[in-house]
Amino acid sequence: MNNQAVVMYAPHDVRLEERPMPEPGPKEVLVEIRSVGVCGSDIHYYEHGRIGSHVVEKPLVLGHESSGVIVGLGEGVTKHEIGERVALEPGVPDGTCRECRAGRYNLCPNVRFFATPPIDGAFASYVTIHEDFAFRLPDSLSDDAGALMEPLSVGIWACRKAGVEAGDHVLITGAGPIGLLAMQVALANGATEVTITDVVPERLELAKKTGATRAINVSDEPLAGSGLEADALIECSGNERALAGGIRCLRPAGTAVVVGMGPGEEATVPLALIQNREIWLTGTFRYANTYPAAIELAATGRVDVEAIVTGHYGLAETEAALQAPRRDPANVKPVVRPGA
Amino acid sequence: MNNQAVVMYAPHDVRLEERPMPEPGPKEVLVEIRSVGVCGSDIHYYEHGRIGSHVVEKPLVLGHESSGVIVGLGEGVTKHEIGERVALEPGVPDGTCRECRAGRYNLCPNVRFFATPPIDGAFASYVTIHEDFAFRLPDSLSDDAGALMEPLSVGIWACRKAGVEAGDHVLITGAGPIGLLAMQVALANGATEVTITDVVPERLELAKKTGATRAINVSDEPLAGSGLEADALIECSGNERALAGGIRCLRPAGTAVVVGMGPGEEATVPLALIQNREIWLTGTFRYANTYPAAIELAATGRVDVEAIVTGHYGLAETEAALQAPRRDPANVKPVVRPGA
Amino acid sequence: MNNQAVVMYAPHDVRLEERPMPEPGPKEVLVEIRSVGVCGSDIHYYEHGRIGSHVVEKPLVLGHESSGVIVGLGEGVTKHEIGERVALEPGVPDGTCRECRAGRYNLCPNVRFFATPPIDGAFASYVTIHEDFAFRLPDSLSDDAGALMEPLSVGIWACRKAGVEAGDHVLITGAGPIGLLAMQVALANGATEVTITDVVPERLELAKKTGATRAINVSDEPLAGSGLEADALIECSGNERALAGGIRCLRPAGTAVVVGMGPGEEATVPLALIQNREIWLTGTFRYANTYPAAIELAATGRVDVEAIVTGHYGLAETEAALQAPRRDPANVKPVVRPGA
Amino acid sequence: MNNQAVVMYAPHDVRLEERPMPEPGPKEVLVEIRSVGVCGSDIHYYEHGRIGSHVVEKPLVLGHESSGVIVGLGEGVTKHEIGERVALEPGVPDGTCRECRAGRYNLCPNVRFFATPPIDGAFASYVTIHEDFAFRLPDSLSDDAGALMEPLSVGIWACRKAGVEAGDHVLITGAGPIGLLAMQVALANGATEVTITDVVPERLELAKKTGATRAINVSDEPLAGSGLEADALIECSGNERALAGGIRCLRPAGTAVVVGMGPGEEATVPLALIQNREIWLTGTFRYANTYPAAIELAATGRVDVEAIVTGHYGLAETEAALQAPRRDPANVKPVVRPGA
Repeated sequence: MNNQAVVMYAPHDVRLEERPMPEPGPKEVLVEIRSVGVCGSDIHYYEHGRIGSHVVEKPLVLGHESSGVIVGLGEGVTKHEIGERVALEPGVPDGTCRECRAGRYNLCPNVRFFATPPIDGAFASYVTIHEDFAFRLPDSLSDDAGALMEPLSVGIWACRKAGVEAGDHVLITGAGPIGLLAMQVALANGATEVTITDVVPERLELAKKTGATRAINVSDEPLAGSGLEADALIECSGNERALAGGIRCLRPAGTAVVVGMGPGEEATVPLALIQNREIWLTGTFRYANTYPAAIELAATGRVDVEAIVTGHYGLAETEAALQAPRRDPANVKPVVRPGA
Repeated sequence: MNNQAVVMYAPHDVRLEERPMPEPGPKEVLVEIRSVGVCGSDIHYYEHGRIGSHVVEKPLVLGHESSGVIVGLGEGVTKHEIGERVALEPGVPDGTCRECRAGRYNLCPNVRFFATPPIDGAFASYVTIHEDFAFRLPDSLSDDAGALMEPLSVGIWACRKAGVEAGDHVLITGAGPIGLLAMQVALANGATEVTITDVVPERLELAKKTGATRAINVSDEPLAGSGLEADALIECSGNERALAGGIRCLRPAGTAVVVGMGPGEEATVPLALIQNREIWLTGTFRYANTYPAAIELAATGRVDVEAIVTGHYGLAETEAALQAPRRDPANVKPVVRPGA
Repeated sequence: MNNQAVVMYAPHDVRLEERPMPEPGPKEVLVEIRSVGVCGSDIHYYEHGRIGSHVVEKPLVLGHESSGVIVGLGEGVTKHEIGERVALEPGVPDGTCRECRAGRYNLCPNVRFFATPPIDGAFASYVTIHEDFAFRLPDSLSDDAGALMEPLSVGIWACRKAGVEAGDHVLITGAGPIGLLAMQVALANGATEVTITDVVPERLELAKKTGATRAINVSDEPLAGSGLEADALIECSGNERALAGGIRCLRPAGTAVVVGMGPGEEATVPLALIQNREIWLTGTFRYANTYPAAIELAATGRVDVEAIVTGHYGLAETEAALQAPRRDPANVKPVVRPGA
Repeated sequence: MNNQAVVMYAPHDVRLEERPMPEPGPKEVLVEIRSVGVCGSDIHYYEHGRIGSHVVEKPLVLGHESSGVIVGLGEGVTKHEIGERVALEPGVPDGTCRECRAGRYNLCPNVRFFATPPIDGAFASYVTIHEDFAFRLPDSLSDDAGALMEPLSVGIWACRKAGVEAGDHVLITGAGPIGLLAMQVALANGATEVTITDVVPERLELAKKTGATRAINVSDEPLAGSGLEADALIECSGNERALAGGIRCLRPAGTAVVVGMGPGEEATVPLALIQNREIWLTGTFRYANTYPAAIELAATGRVDVEAIVTGHYGLAETEAALQAPRRDPANVKPVVRPGA
């Protein structure tokens, strides 16, 4: 066995290299990677070499949406066996800090998260991970579906924070991969009206095909006059005006969940309205305790994650995959297949 | 117009009579009844003349699962118009007591609830109700579906108390009308495994046809050995052993919601297990704030309420409708159509 | 009996007038007013003739923090008797709308709220109110304390939204009457560190006397370097920078509750931080279901509401009371005593 | 240094022995024990050799309520230093299982909990523990207070489950150490009426001295006629009738939390009432995320844990300490001081 990895040295400088074979430590499994989705954060690192305070200072392997096959077991592993197909939850927290103890392990300050400097990610032939963060995939789910349990988790987490339940009306601003998956999760939670907005016609088409009850191109039709009254807003565009406009569409005591990351540290929100309507506003940072639900939602067909896959690439073509969405926003979700 | 009503004088003594036409008071609407479901509580009053401390002391009109058409408007009505089809939420609370102010209007001590002595119900040609408790039906929903928004509300309320969400495993004990509808609501909330139990094969068949992922006839196959680990239990059989057995199937921190009413005031529960697993146990009494969601779930096809209708009766045949389920438990939900 | 009232005709134009004696309707009580606190909103109406979209278009009686003695009973009153001392919850909702049914009666679009145009308030000898919104005062509570159950309710509501519980660290920005009472409520809820900020030394002194574990004059000492990490922020200053600075002091998954009303419709918040720490932000609009707790907290000495009273005025001196806080911010809470 | 420990070989057979000095592993600290409270579970093991399925099969050191001084640091310890006084949270979970990830680490199936077979406890000169489960004690707290952070945690957890908040009325059945501390925590959370019941006059006296607003000796005065309507019940007696009677005193939608362990696996509860009033019932198993709050509540004087200490014993007198409460129920909390 030989371990290839796509290593980022600097913005727009990624190289396919041979790396030492990783060794699974105690309670860790060795996974041969089969499928890796390209995420907006991978693209951001590729283009800018940083996201906020996370700076790529040493060569870094990107990629954190991954699935594969277990090919090695570290000492004390009890929950997996060789040959098992798994989806990888890419962040392993310390398990003992205040946030972890409170069940908010996504906020663990000591988390080791794939493709977040200095932790290497999954654009590679092999990775190791703690056995409790590898989740068995049923046969009905493809390798690509396994990789997409990660962005699906983001959507599940957003819907949980938003408290989406049966009969709700949900507004989703932004029909990128996260918006599209959050939309499907809202529908799976029983939302009866799900409105999604974007400015890219192909994305809105995809939204309609995957269940949106209404898709609004906000270049043509402003949200303000839409008459919409939503129980929850899930903001996935990173656009400050979309957030403010979406909040104005919320019913009293509705909830706004901000998932999309904007360019700045601050944003202007309609505070008087938040007060007068007692609206709740929060943001999400990754997710916690979502993988089992993600796998079941996909396996039972409640959510069709593969519907958002727009292209496949070999490991040697990873840079092209990283460039695809910027080249054409209709390229919603490129997927890299290291073994292909 | 002339108002016929089915009046219960005593157990097994119900008579079709002409009653004065009701007059809508301020903020009330006059509704011509189109469809009324028969509920277990109607049957219990018909057979025993009482439910717990609620005793039929004067002639009483039964029936509280109803829909109809608005044919008259009281003073100050602003939310409805003549000719509108509506589902009736049958309990009108006082709106100012402690429970109402807290949003628990189903627990209002002064609620006036159809077919609960001394308030007359809906086995009649006409009834009046406060306009805020009549809910417009979309064209896509039939009169029968409108009537069944009431038991569907019981199912929605149970799922809310149980906190059912996407990816959950739910156990429902008892496949009568409430169990069957709670099951569909659990699925609409994204539950990925819904197991239902009963002893009547026809009911279990109906459960499978309407989405149960597993239907267990507990006459043949005890729940104990099923290997089931559920996030939530919704007990709809009124059977003490079903409750205890269901609780034993819950995961740590799972929730048991008791909907079915048993014969006695008390029940034995596995308390040590409730403690060691920190299980939550509660019961439901009717429902609150469910009608809008019920209508949307039915209108969007998430729930098929008509699937549980097993027979239709004219107003003059109401007594036969009240006897049908006891005659054959496969008669899950008889529906009376006063205008037919 | 003769009913005097202080009527506002226009900004800075208030007149003491004789008004017709109000008649209690069904379920209403007639109350002889004993004490009325001056609230910032009264002052805002007095100075500007409006608050947002609420415009004083006809002569209006201000005052909504009141207590008094029941001197008349409308038809059907069952919960009170003549001579009973009561605190008045000044907003009576419709009791049947969606918000009321959900227990959010403070968001009822049809609420009739004292001193909010066109509903008259309590700077008067007599008012009427629904019996369920008059709360019996124990002998141990003074008339002034009874009036201050209203701003105390604002503080209770803020603490409930913030989820303050035993052992929490709470930051309160703004030591006006609401901040000071919210602070005491936080302490009553078991908060072990309560930091309060303001720029008025007298207010900070009062905060320390009533339990603040730390009082920071932000003119001298910026919050940024304070090292504070709070579970909850209760913003009571209406200052945008205080809100942003307070949010930066929250622990991961902490909650910010905005109570103070700022001058504008919008505000800038540290959104990236809200996302990265999954902070919850909301605002409060009045309160719901707080009066019984307010009365008990005051009666048991957990909260000393009279500590914030800084001056007494007769009904004829109401205008001076309305001007007092602007004249000197140390005048935290002027109280008008109509009968004095 | 030399390590003495009190080892239980069989029911009523405990021996003071010299044991090897424990070595702190990675991230562990070595603690010289100063104070250990005797808990009912210690007594139960001492008398019966088992609690449910937990059986003492090999010699076991009892004691899990402990405090001490850090005298050694394992590899990688960063949060403590030699000489620091700490309270020990006695259960260290695995940190990665489903329950841990969800923040319910008290339900971790792999937890290693002091004095639960086969894990040794703290009736010893020295123990080791993971650094994240040792909590720094402020100077204001005594060694005994540090040890009692453990039963105080049980009380905090019970109050959290019960949702006790300012203005609540709380009923506590059973005035043993847990009931007495839960009572103080309820008061610290702002409960304005706290009623406690027991049959031992000395315990009820202690309850009154530490803040009970009402103490009922249920040998003399049945709870049934008390007129009590509580928001929450915290059952600490392990008595089935106390639980049923307490539930009957709850307001609609109130919460019953069962802390006391009864003799049997099952118990009879008033189920119809739980349904009709939509009461929530749950139990507690240990606690999670309570130590920081416990320490602050004690350090700020909100809770006086030392008030329940009824006697001190040297390590050699541990058996007498284990026998004290049974000998006289007024011996609420014996404390062993290994270094004394």
